Amino acid sequence: MALMTGEQYIESIRKLNMQVYMFGKKIECPVDDPILRPSLNSVRMTYDLAQEAEYEDLMTVVSPYTGKRVNRFTHIHQSTTDLRNKVKMQRLLGQKTAACFQRCVGMDAFNSVFSTTFETDKAHGTNYHDNFKKFMMYCQEEDLTVDGAMTDPKGDRSKAPHAQEDPDLFLRVVERREDGIVVRGCKAHQTGALNSHEIIIMPTISMTPADKDYAVSFAVPMDTKGIYMIIGRQSCDTRKLENTEMDVGNAEFGGVEALTIFDDVFVPNDRIFLNGETEFAGMMVERFAGYHRQSYGGCKVGVGDVLIGAAAVAADFNGAAKASHVKDKLIEMTHLNETLYCCGIACSAEGHQTESGNYLIDLLLANVCKQNITRFPYEIVRLAEDIAGGLMVTAPSEADFRDPTLGPVIDKYLRGVNAVSTENRLRILRLIENLALGTAAVGYRTESMHGAGSPQAQRIMIARQGNLAHKKELAKTIAHITE
Amino acid sequence: MALMTGEQYIESIRKLNMQVYMFGKKIECPVDDPILRPSLNSVRMTYDLAQEAEYEDLMTVVSPYTGKRVNRFTHIHQSTTDLRNKVKMQRLLGQKTAACFQRCVGMDAFNSVFSTTFETDKAHGTNYHDNFKKFMMYCQEEDLTVDGAMTDPKGDRSKAPHAQEDPDLFLRVVERREDGIVVRGCKAHQTGALNSHEIIIMPTISMTPADKDYAVSFAVPMDTKGIYMIIGRQSCDTRKLENTEMDVGNAEFGGVEALTIFDDVFVPNDRIFLNGETEFAGMMVERFAGYHRQSYGGCKVGVGDVLIGAAAVAADFNGAAKASHVKDKLIEMTHLNETLYCCGIACSAEGHQTESGNYLIDLLLANVCKQNITRFPYEIVRLAEDIAGGLMVTAPSEADFRDPTLGPVIDKYLRGVNAVSTENRLRILRLIENLALGTAAVGYRTESMHGAGSPQAQRIMIARQGNLAHKKELAKTIAHITE
Amino acid sequence: MALMTGEQYIESIRKLNMQVYMFGKKIECPVDDPILRPSLNSVRMTYDLAQEAEYEDLMTVVSPYTGKRVNRFTHIHQSTTDLRNKVKMQRLLGQKTAACFQRCVGMDAFNSVFSTTFETDKAHGTNYHDNFKKFMMYCQEEDLTVDGAMTDPKGDRSKAPHAQEDPDLFLRVVERREDGIVVRGCKAHQTGALNSHEIIIMPTISMTPADKDYAVSFAVPMDTKGIYMIIGRQSCDTRKLENTEMDVGNAEFGGVEALTIFDDVFVPNDRIFLNGETEFAGMMVERFAGYHRQSYGGCKVGVGDVLIGAAAVAADFNGAAKASHVKDKLIEMTHLNETLYCCGIACSAEGHQTESGNYLIDLLLANVCKQNITRFPYEIVRLAEDIAGGLMVTAPSEADFRDPTLGPVIDKYLRGVNAVSTENRLRILRLIENLALGTAAVGYRTESMHGAGSPQAQRIMIARQGNLAHKKELAKTIAHITE
Amino acid sequence: MALMTGEQYIESIRKLNMQVYMFGKKIECPVDDPILRPSLNSVRMTYDLAQEAEYEDLMTVVSPYTGKRVNRFTHIHQSTTDLRNKVKMQRLLGQKTAACFQRCVGMDAFNSVFSTTFETDKAHGTNYHDNFKKFMMYCQEEDLTVDGAMTDPKGDRSKAPHAQEDPDLFLRVVERREDGIVVRGCKAHQTGALNSHEIIIMPTISMTPADKDYAVSFAVPMDTKGIYMIIGRQSCDTRKLENTEMDVGNAEFGGVEALTIFDDVFVPNDRIFLNGETEFAGMMVERFAGYHRQSYGGCKVGVGDVLIGAAAVAADFNGAAKASHVKDKLIEMTHLNETLYCCGIACSAEGHQTESGNYLIDLLLANVCKQNITRFPYEIVRLAEDIAGGLMVTAPSEADFRDPTLGPVIDKYLRGVNAVSTENRLRILRLIENLALGTAAVGYRTESMHGAGSPQAQRIMIARQGNLAHKKELAKTIAHITE
Repeated sequence: MALMTGEQYIESIRKLNMQVYMFGKKIECPVDDPILRPSLNSVRMTYDLAQEAEYEDLMTVVSPYTGKRVNRFTHIHQSTTDLRNKVKMQRLLGQKTAACFQRCVGMDAFNSVFSTTFETDKAHGTNYHDNFKKFMMYCQEEDLTVDGAMTDPKGDRSKAPHAQEDPDLFLRVVERREDGIVVRGCKAHQTGALNSHEIIIMPTISMTPADKDYAVSFAVPMDTKGIYMIIGRQSCDTRKLENTEMDVGNAEFGGVEALTIFDDVFVPNDRIFLNGETEFAGMMVERFAGYHRQSYGGCKVGVGDVLIGAAAVAADFNGAAKASHVKDKLIEMTHLNETLYCCGIACSAEGHQTESGNYLIDLLLANVCKQNITRFPYEIVRLAEDIAGGLMVTAPSEADFRDPTLGPVIDKYLRGVNAVSTENRLRILRLIENLALGTAAVGYRTESMHGAGSPQAQRIMIARQGNLAHKKELAKTIAHITE
Repeated sequence: MALMTGEQYIESIRKLNMQVYMFGKKIECPVDDPILRPSLNSVRMTYDLAQEAEYEDLMTVVSPYTGKRVNRFTHIHQSTTDLRNKVKMQRLLGQKTAACFQRCVGMDAFNSVFSTTFETDKAHGTNYHDNFKKFMMYCQEEDLTVDGAMTDPKGDRSKAPHAQEDPDLFLRVVERREDGIVVRGCKAHQTGALNSHEIIIMPTISMTPADKDYAVSFAVPMDTKGIYMIIGRQSCDTRKLENTEMDVGNAEFGGVEALTIFDDVFVPNDRIFLNGETEFAGMMVERFAGYHRQSYGGCKVGVGDVLIGAAAVAADFNGAAKASHVKDKLIEMTHLNETLYCCGIACSAEGHQTESGNYLIDLLLANVCKQNITRFPYEIVRLAEDIAGGLMVTAPSEADFRDPTLGPVIDKYLRGVNAVSTENRLRILRLIENLALGTAAVGYRTESMHGAGSPQAQRIMIARQGNLAHKKELAKTIAHITE
Repeated sequence: MALMTGEQYIESIRKLNMQVYMFGKKIECPVDDPILRPSLNSVRMTYDLAQEAEYEDLMTVVSPYTGKRVNRFTHIHQSTTDLRNKVKMQRLLGQKTAACFQRCVGMDAFNSVFSTTFETDKAHGTNYHDNFKKFMMYCQEEDLTVDGAMTDPKGDRSKAPHAQEDPDLFLRVVERREDGIVVRGCKAHQTGALNSHEIIIMPTISMTPADKDYAVSFAVPMDTKGIYMIIGRQSCDTRKLENTEMDVGNAEFGGVEALTIFDDVFVPNDRIFLNGETEFAGMMVERFAGYHRQSYGGCKVGVGDVLIGAAAVAADFNGAAKASHVKDKLIEMTHLNETLYCCGIACSAEGHQTESGNYLIDLLLANVCKQNITRFPYEIVRLAEDIAGGLMVTAPSEADFRDPTLGPVIDKYLRGVNAVSTENRLRILRLIENLALGTAAVGYRTESMHGAGSPQAQRIMIARQGNLAHKKELAKTIAHITE
Repeated sequence: MALMTGEQYIESIRKLNMQVYMFGKKIECPVDDPILRPSLNSVRMTYDLAQEAEYEDLMTVVSPYTGKRVNRFTHIHQSTTDLRNKVKMQRLLGQKTAACFQRCVGMDAFNSVFSTTFETDKAHGTNYHDNFKKFMMYCQEEDLTVDGAMTDPKGDRSKAPHAQEDPDLFLRVVERREDGIVVRGCKAHQTGALNSHEIIIMPTISMTPADKDYAVSFAVPMDTKGIYMIIGRQSCDTRKLENTEMDVGNAEFGGVEALTIFDDVFVPNDRIFLNGETEFAGMMVERFAGYHRQSYGGCKVGVGDVLIGAAAVAADFNGAAKASHVKDKLIEMTHLNETLYCCGIACSAEGHQTESGNYLIDLLLANVCKQNITRFPYEIVRLAEDIAGGLMVTAPSEADFRDPTLGPVIDKYLRGVNAVSTENRLRILRLIENLALGTAAVGYRTESMHGAGSPQAQRIMIARQGNLAHKKELAKTIAHITE
């Protein structure tokens, strides 16, 4: 099968029989639900752009496994150039959607499971790498979107998986059968599960032998029996039900997260990638987290580009674009955003080949990248709110604006620069609101904080990878300290 | 009349025939509207607490004008102790509402109009100070809530009021009659106009003689003919229509802003406080802004207390309260919040008496106060989001939680520390969401940025008040530079 | 005796037979030593200004104990106004010296020992408060400068005083005699010990009964037998030996620190303020630290004023004063500096009376004050270096500038704005260098970090004083959480 | 000639007849001067490491022009790998010297002059590129150190070169002869001029035709008639005259800057690289600045590694290494330092080929890199001072420590962890002092601020390169704004 068009992708998702709940109700047709659809549109962009000649090199690549041109989101990175192109593709998609386009988790899962299964097999004589390669090639051939699922609910954070009062707070094997395993548990915050064909499960933390049943990785179709999703609320989610375009800020694109439950789901043997080899749980986690921390150096930068642009447009429309403090704030926003990009590029350029042959980012720099992501988008948002002005949060609704009596009053009084329509002024402010406080703020702010691991997780990795012992030696040499 | 109880206050507002529009519709009974009611409840808290013996010294004071005990919100500050008590009262109310309680604008208008009218009369032989005193005593006697309205829409920011293409973009006198004046224009972002009995209008910038018609200050009842309001949208505003309590985070309190239009409103002579004396427009603006920048050193600190507390509770419920990085983040939040408080207290303690007899804050320090307010609440929010965890923005709706099938699943998987109910864990996360992204974020973040003047306005004042010439002399003396 | 003049102060110090060592040599006449003299000049300023009518209210006060007008540095604070005036006096002295004027430690020791002895006596029936009052009145009468000495070397920080391998690493009582005690140990970083008539010793940490011999406080003259000082090196200290004025930046004023050793020093009974009552060690430490953290909200602000002024002068001389980014940086420096001042003022205004009758600052806010001091001066310095330009650290020496051949070349090429002499340009840059990297940087930067306790000490106090439990209750109330 | 050994390098510099002045005196033998020698040692390290097999790939490369292995400092970058290796080499040298090793300016001048001369020749039919290539190959063959000189004194910054009152405040051609040109003027802040064999002059700003005589670039030997240097003072420079090792902190390495005067210096035709083609002045400046802003992403990171190591050692010696706040500060320092490295790597990896064939860094990212360099080293220093403790600036001199009487007292009282000698504790503190306040602070702090252009210069470039128009388009598309 060739690369899917965006339309084909939408239809392929429509055909899946997924179990999705929201506001206490089953959503019969998630594809057409006004709250959920923008998130599907974001994923669709990964298909649409792959069809455009202009973006061919960024969006697609010839797979060394199938010999065919595949979407880069299904690719196994073959070089540091691939790693850098991944980041550039993500920035492009962030620019085009101003939202989370959700397909990265699968790509990052692909590359971490690829190398980890190779090393697990080498140590244990298992057959996981072949299982995974078969699955991967199938996804490449069919051009599938895959969710990469890591985060368990974790319950009491001071206790290991097996020590939790409720044993299901980490996803686990509850039955081992000849033809496969049965798993139970749940994965939280699943970005884009709902818009995926398949889901790869990975463990969420390093484990000891006592956690054997929790050290499990596998892939199943999203509409496998026993899987269901409960959609997470986002700020301003129901504005999308109002049938207005202005108030949502970004009418077309968005992200979505779901609590994804595995209620005794059967996994056939050939879809298993880890099953009890606890010492490899940590490697899989660390590599997935590493790839995903790199990802944020692309996607959030792209969203940042839109926010910087929106702030600049707002300044134009307010008649404040020439104020030196406004220009300086736009420079600062750009500076911060490009610093994030530097981190995304650097951890890619400094990547290296794993034993399995694919390329892994530099773990230290990828963690540094994500740590900055937990800071700079917040400051970029703050500066955008500064430039936008208070009207961003006090402007009347579109319903008021469309009202024949109130509309002209609003039009009269909320006009900025005379040449710009009040509608356009309000539109750009709503886009900033969307990114600062609305549905997209979930992705641009809170996900920047916690996605791919909370800040402290990166600090632990920075401590571990920072080679402090070497630095101490350097200092002692210079200071002529002998012990 | 004695101090009103909260209930009496509500009923007194209910009696007013205000013109309020929202979502393209006239709101017949704003007092009972589920979106608007929380903002009324916040103002009500200023009445309720004034009834409690515990808070008598903070909430009330004996007026030197009426000789009776009045609510401090209607008081003319008689000392720096009054100025400090104002800040403490505001912190208390921020703690009790976690929202904007809206009554400060009137208090700050009272004190700036009080002294400015005195000095205007002295220069021009006008009678504004008496007009104002009469009005002020009436408000004290009746225990009224007064909106202080300053911000005009301003149109093209590079042009003066009289030079705007549309002459109404700053509120102005359109007719001068024997018995009064007729005004037209609008005031944007009116915090709590809707919950006020009266409204004081003030100019929004310094003016030159060409802007004579714009240099106008007066007070009228909120239900005066020709005044109407269009309510501004807030993030997550319609969650309040869902009849749920958890998802709104703060079910009881909130703030609100309205575009308030003056469609040829008549103002009788004895309610006029400025009318064409353009050189006093700047003084009124500067003093109101100064008082209001002080205010933020109280109210936002109180809201910050709630947010710090909420983050600490979330850490408890997540089982993370003992992690050293969590403790350190709570310390940092406290440190930042108390720094803001220091600024509120300092500009009060360093206040001085005006010619009219009331007390004015130190303008430099009040501007420094507000400038910090444009920064630290953002960082406090960021740290709160860090501690809260991603669940804050991905948790299912209350409708899901109340669903007999989905509820138990959510209860099972989203439990943190076993001893804490999942409901309580979700409640605290929703409160943080409310302050970080929801309706209260409008007040705690964007209003912190732009309320009482955008950051650059403070920087201009800091430059003007900072006495750089004196600092240069100090440096030259030390460096032995003679010129 | 009346207040001393500056000259009388100098002569009074000259008469003392202090033991001072520097660069491996005994300094026979510290008063005339070119490296040490600037620090004496700084203290002298506390005497000189007290003679000026303009500063009488700030610099002097009528003692309620002697009934005479005394220097405020020897005063026991009688009100929050006194506390605020203390901060203002310190800012003034910082402005006049651009250095540490060293007399605050004694004032802060006075006030903490005053109230702690009162409470100790109440608990133990001891006579320390009378001892102290007698000593205090003597200092007031004689207008003495007193060093307040707290910091012990502390050895291995993970061990208590009595548990150190060397028992002398905290100062201790080595002998108890009928007429007094003999003490041994040392106090590190003693600011201005060398310029003081008397020294008050206090313990450096909270103690348990096992540390009984270490819980000791007393006062002795600086030239008591057994006391000697080894002067600490400062950056650029020996420039003062070059007989040039320009290169030192601040030719007249400076600070100094000394390792002060107590080699079996006898203390008579009536000079003892604590002697084994270990549970009061912590109170004395906490109060002294509190007062001293307040102090930094005055003195460092005054030094900051000079640095801001110097940066502004440098901008003038460089011809860059009109650049918007330069103006903005000066505003930012002012903003940060005044934020520090707010903290100094606020913890004073919020002070309260102790059982002994004197006034104590608000401990939470004083710690917040100092915590900001560990940050903002560094940023102010960074901005000053930005404005100054690289010439600050690459300009030739004054010897080159005075050379008949090289001088004209330097004069030609290092001229900025033509109307300003190159000499003046170099002078202002050397002053900035002095504060950023030179002798004064020790006081403005590193002392801002560690003086009055290192940053972590403040964080511990902020945690302790921040009343997190109350904040949690506020949040639970708003979130309707019942447990 | 093969690559020089460090010793050969020293001797080759000794042979040059340079005119060097310091403290008003001519330095007869700069190579042996105790103040200047450490800077020579730093450059020497670029020769020493090139001799080590371990560093061959980083330090050396086969020149495509000579076909021989040359020191990378004389190399013309042939790929983005070369650009990245440049940064890695610089980090290594920063680690080995904890100072500025001065040879980068020549390398950066080489690469910018190489491509600019190519494009100038193309536009003007001149022969500069061949001139430069000949010179470059000579330097490669002889393994020379070259100073790259850009910064003119600039006088009144509001005036163009030709409009200055003194026409020599920018270096200029004063005479055009058949065989060459005569130039007059001076270059300020010349890092390492004194340790170089040759010097390349470049213009310092963009120019218009009126500045024709100022648009000049060329190379001459450092001991050419008419060139002389006046050494800039550094903080603590004269400590190196005290014959002690401890107090200087870094006894072996340092940097140095000199005001370098061109007193009618003759330049032969074949050493001229630009001569009046004013429109190419800007290109040369922009490229040199770009390369040099990249450089700081290497060298300052290496110095940062030493400082982080030193702080960690100090924590060990203080017995504080296990405190969570200390560990966290070391993580933060590492995080900031690696963020800088990311920027250095990213602008290299994103480099591209110029028309002349060599590789240029990404200009936007290189400016972002430098902008961060103007911030993070200051924060790293601040954190290092925090960890070090106040003893860093109050410890007695080495002369005291070596004194038979005082030494044992210091040894006793300034011991930290018992197992560590007091001498070692003092040594590490002196190294931190050296980097925070001493000679190396000039390089690590102030040069980070102003070297390769002051912060505002980068902001202008970020504004220019940031493509705000494209970002606005992105935002308008998302917001559905059509105009």
